[in-house]
Amino acid sequence: MTGHPKAAVCVLGTGLIGGSVLRAAAAAGYEAWGYNRSAAGSKSARADGFDVTSDVEAVLRRAAERDAIIVIGVPMPALDTVLSDVKSFAPDCVLTDVVSVKAPVAEAVHRHELGAHFVGGHPMAGTSESGWAASAPDLFEDAAWALSVDAGVRAEPWTRVARLALDCGAVVVPVLSDEHDRAVARISHLPHVLAEALAIQGAAGGNLALGLAAGSFRDGTRVAATAPELVRAICEPNAAALLEVLQDTLRVLGAARDTLRDSGDIADLTAAGHSARVDYDDNQRWAITGIRPGDHDWLDQLADAGRRGGVLKTLD
Amino acid sequence: MTGHPKAAVCVLGTGLIGGSVLRAAAAAGYEAWGYNRSAAGSKSARADGFDVTSDVEAVLRRAAERDAIIVIGVPMPALDTVLSDVKSFAPDCVLTDVVSVKAPVAEAVHRHELGAHFVGGHPMAGTSESGWAASAPDLFEDAAWALSVDAGVRAEPWTRVARLALDCGAVVVPVLSDEHDRAVARISHLPHVLAEALAIQGAAGGNLALGLAAGSFRDGTRVAATAPELVRAICEPNAAALLEVLQDTLRVLGAARDTLRDSGDIADLTAAGHSARVDYDDNQRWAITGIRPGDHDWLDQLADAGRRGGVLKTLD
Repeated sequence: MTGHPKAAVCVLGTGLIGGSVLRAAAAAGYEAWGYNRSAAGSKSARADGFDVTSDVEAVLRRAAERDAIIVIGVPMPALDTVLSDVKSFAPDCVLTDVVSVKAPVAEAVHRHELGAHFVGGHPMAGTSESGWAASAPDLFEDAAWALSVDAGVRAEPWTRVARLALDCGAVVVPVLSDEHDRAVARISHLPHVLAEALAIQGAAGGNLALGLAAGSFRDGTRVAATAPELVRAICEPNAAALLEVLQDTLRVLGAARDTLRDSGDIADLTAAGHSARVDYDDNQRWAITGIRPGDHDWLDQLADAGRRGGVLKTLD
Repeated sequence: MTGHPKAAVCVLGTGLIGGSVLRAAAAAGYEAWGYNRSAAGSKSARADGFDVTSDVEAVLRRAAERDAIIVIGVPMPALDTVLSDVKSFAPDCVLTDVVSVKAPVAEAVHRHELGAHFVGGHPMAGTSESGWAASAPDLFEDAAWALSVDAGVRAEPWTRVARLALDCGAVVVPVLSDEHDRAVARISHLPHVLAEALAIQGAAGGNLALGLAAGSFRDGTRVAATAPELVRAICEPNAAALLEVLQDTLRVLGAARDTLRDSGDIADLTAAGHSARVDYDDNQRWAITGIRPGDHDWLDQLADAGRRGGVLKTLD
């Protein structure tokens, strides 16, 4: 809870992530409402007791009136339209987003001259499901929620958005947009690409292979169940970073292929892969303390702490 | 239950899979005992109330006496030693194995002149854990258990081993050894290779990337937590089939890299990957009926049914 009884949140796009923000914020005591382009989507949310409509102007006028934090939860291809609406009806609200890739969103926000109150965000949570029906108030429980500390970000909107993320149950990872995008290419976009490739190889083995498939195939292809247009909307705006990591993956797999062919072993790959997975299992979040938004150099200090694995667990 | 009160099972190698066979067989009413090379391994099993020792001769002499089904559960590198022991002390017992790759095991069995009573097997179950401590009596519940229908396999041992698999809670997938090995390269060995590569790319992103990693990375790298020597013991005996599927994976990923670089999209990859994952989700096991081991052409008929996704759910 925030201790800010008047805090209000307006969510634009109530799919899996945006819908979960709406639910989590409402559960944390925020006045929360939302917009969804599809009437069917709005209706499902209303049927669950949430204040969601397809009238973007009304939703945004209310945001301006109530000084709400606006959370953009639409997929990347719909971003420009929604930013135009924000510019028209609620240009002075604190603005954040949950649209995965950060540098292209920040660019678009600045193109729409909405940078002054903007703090890019990315909660690291999801399932292979999508839409309001898949949203849940506890989706962000203990999740990492990346928040941009790019040059020019201001302390007051940053603090308000960070508080929202914490109130949704997450911990806050302060990060520069371009470092975020390179990191998620590794741990979110590459997993999608490899899952698609693995699914293709399994299905190419026909009923026999699919019938023999067990846990390793099921888990390794889980995110290939995500709607392909959604995977594209997540990965393609991060093409440059994904390209770099995919190229390096081809190098690693090509080397494994060569040693398997030439000496019949995959010793280097398994040693490096196991050690990397141990790094992941051992990776500990440590609590950033003593850096206050607005202090001298706070953006750089937070970026440095986030880079070293630090997270904000409270604001004070 | 089998209705064969005298059925006996002797498990050689009581790690994750062999130990689980021992537990499942005992739970199903079989007289079951085992051998484990390490005294510590035997001791843990005995502490759990199971009859496991490190005296392979005694264990195998008892198998000969009790006409037990011998189940080989040692990793591939230990196979030759164990087959020598079987040849010395219990050459006439029905013999099966749970050693993943099938053609190399069958070759070794025939080299030791133990082919007459042999039926190669592979239960499709496991975790990233290993050893007796990870074994469980319900590991095979509803799992696919591949059983070889290679030319020369005889009906009586096949029926006995199939009954054991069913009694352990699995369904039986009849399959030719080389078709099995090509299929598991796709759905079991390639997942290991891709998980290792993904883990490497995540860890290369340092604390920031590992701290942002969520479900897709966790699931995609799960099997990279398996001990690297075990991954090698599983994958390397199937080098030829794995090489072929890895080569094709490089082709698929290389094509994705090219379109991402040249046109900024991964449309072909996501469409094909999603469709493949849907094939997997939709894949239904259907029950093979009306083919009796020993009937004219039964091996070919079972191989054909298994190839088309059929499984044996009962024997009658």
